[in-house]
Amino acid sequence: MTARAFLGIDVGGTTTSAGLVTAQGRVVAGRRRPTHGPAAGDAVPRVLALASEVAGLARPRGYRLAGVGAGVPGIVNGATGVIGGEAHNVPELGGVPLARLLRRALGVPAAVDNDVNALALGEWMWGAGRGARSLVLLALGTGVGGGIVLDGRLYRGAAGFGGELGHVPVELHGRPCVCGARGCLKAYVAGPDLSAEGSRRLGRPVDAAELFRLAAGGDATATAVVDQALEALAAGLTIIVNGLNPDRLLLAGSIARALAPRAAELRARLARRAYAGALATTRLRFLGLDKRTTVRGGAALARQAAIARAHA
Amino acid sequence: MTARAFLGIDVGGTTTSAGLVTAQGRVVAGRRRPTHGPAAGDAVPRVLALASEVAGLARPRGYRLAGVGAGVPGIVNGATGVIGGEAHNVPELGGVPLARLLRRALGVPAAVDNDVNALALGEWMWGAGRGARSLVLLALGTGVGGGIVLDGRLYRGAAGFGGELGHVPVELHGRPCVCGARGCLKAYVAGPDLSAEGSRRLGRPVDAAELFRLAAGGDATATAVVDQALEALAAGLTIIVNGLNPDRLLLAGSIARALAPRAAELRARLARRAYAGALATTRLRFLGLDKRTTVRGGAALARQAAIARAHA
Repeated sequence: MTARAFLGIDVGGTTTSAGLVTAQGRVVAGRRRPTHGPAAGDAVPRVLALASEVAGLARPRGYRLAGVGAGVPGIVNGATGVIGGEAHNVPELGGVPLARLLRRALGVPAAVDNDVNALALGEWMWGAGRGARSLVLLALGTGVGGGIVLDGRLYRGAAGFGGELGHVPVELHGRPCVCGARGCLKAYVAGPDLSAEGSRRLGRPVDAAELFRLAAGGDATATAVVDQALEALAAGLTIIVNGLNPDRLLLAGSIARALAPRAAELRARLARRAYAGALATTRLRFLGLDKRTTVRGGAALARQAAIARAHA
Repeated sequence: MTARAFLGIDVGGTTTSAGLVTAQGRVVAGRRRPTHGPAAGDAVPRVLALASEVAGLARPRGYRLAGVGAGVPGIVNGATGVIGGEAHNVPELGGVPLARLLRRALGVPAAVDNDVNALALGEWMWGAGRGARSLVLLALGTGVGGGIVLDGRLYRGAAGFGGELGHVPVELHGRPCVCGARGCLKAYVAGPDLSAEGSRRLGRPVDAAELFRLAAGGDATATAVVDQALEALAAGLTIIVNGLNPDRLLLAGSIARALAPRAAELRARLARRAYAGALATTRLRFLGLDKRTTVRGGAALARQAAIARAHA
């Protein structure tokens, strides 16, 4: 019997990755492409073409394609599989029934969910979340999102917003956020927000990477911005630790990686805020994900859907 | 066959209630007593005495006592059933194995949990939460606590802190909170905190009830304090709506009742903060609980434990 492989796709604002993942979580083949090509609005056909290309690698490598799953930057309606209008990074995905398109293109069952949800499920199935009964993954990058896995299932809430932990307020009358509200965690820790605040205070344009470099080099202004990000993140993590007290709390994404050298300070700030009993039982970990492993998220969606069908 | 009844107990900082509740959620008998008597540290024996008294009403009224459950003001260890040291309102409960004491005293299975968890389960089983797949209850009174019911089960997290939604920060460098942190939701909306802030601003001692009366009568200072409570509550509810997007969000307790006349304004403030798609699918409701119905929480714990035993 040929071994099964699941096609995992991670649709990003800039790059889309696709990979074949075994039922044990090993990535056996993969490709990356820019999400957007030269033509306007060509992201969806490009994702489908990449999916077909990588699906075609299964048989030559001795695998049978058992399903496809994709993580996308947006809220996905759990009942219809249609991507909502909030996919800020790839607006043309709004309203697209991507699962149906993938199923039609590849002839295998397809599952689509929010990218951070997919990542959280992948880590629970094969990564830093193995064995956890409850897991929260917070992804800090261009945006800030969360994924909640409880008893091995993604918690989505009434309409798929469950886990939108970037848009929890940490400051009553704080910075304006892209979502229209004020004081959201995202407004203090996401890359574009750090860049905007750093540029404003420094009086010249800096991106988040340069801001972190300046802070590491001792620049007082950059340090103040990064300190505020750490404090806001400590408050956001307190919401998760006190409010949900999950077994595992995983931090992923480019901004989490940039903050990892200051993990001890983050923990100290968190300890001043959270209940000691909750903090002692929620294991906090920084994830060093590479582009190769993010495709495991989509594959985990596909594998879990296959398991559900087998038990139905 | 004699119908079953469950003994439900609600241990409060001032008053303890106990009642017999049918499997359909009807309260058929009940008693209330002050939690503390004349002797220091007599709360536990008084709770046990009240439990025995009300348990004794079952047979004369034609019911067979099938179990006992108690909601207590503190964090309860799910594995051992021992009450943690954080029971601020009734400190002597800390470390007490109340479930074991109740089982021994009454000769029936016993379940003990946090009072707000119990209330949330009771509302899910028999009240305003019936039919919800996901439910969050936020109780606003002397303290602020939360209960989370997912797929008919209480979500407790790693060590029972799951749902401690009074101690989520809504203001980075905000008011000091009794828990040791700063800017917790509780510090803006709990009775003692409203009283402290109102007294400070008015220059004379007022309790929360008088503060609400003054605000309703048009006093500008009192109105400012109540407005700030509304805004902090809107932020706290945004955390729940965006972060968890539950089917139902129930507000209970004396402060929720006092704020109920301004529900429309609370909803407007919430609409300025939360995702429209999340808010449209999370049904918000103010609960008018009386002392009689709070005993249903403990009874719900007992009934759910009985169902679990029947399926084991």
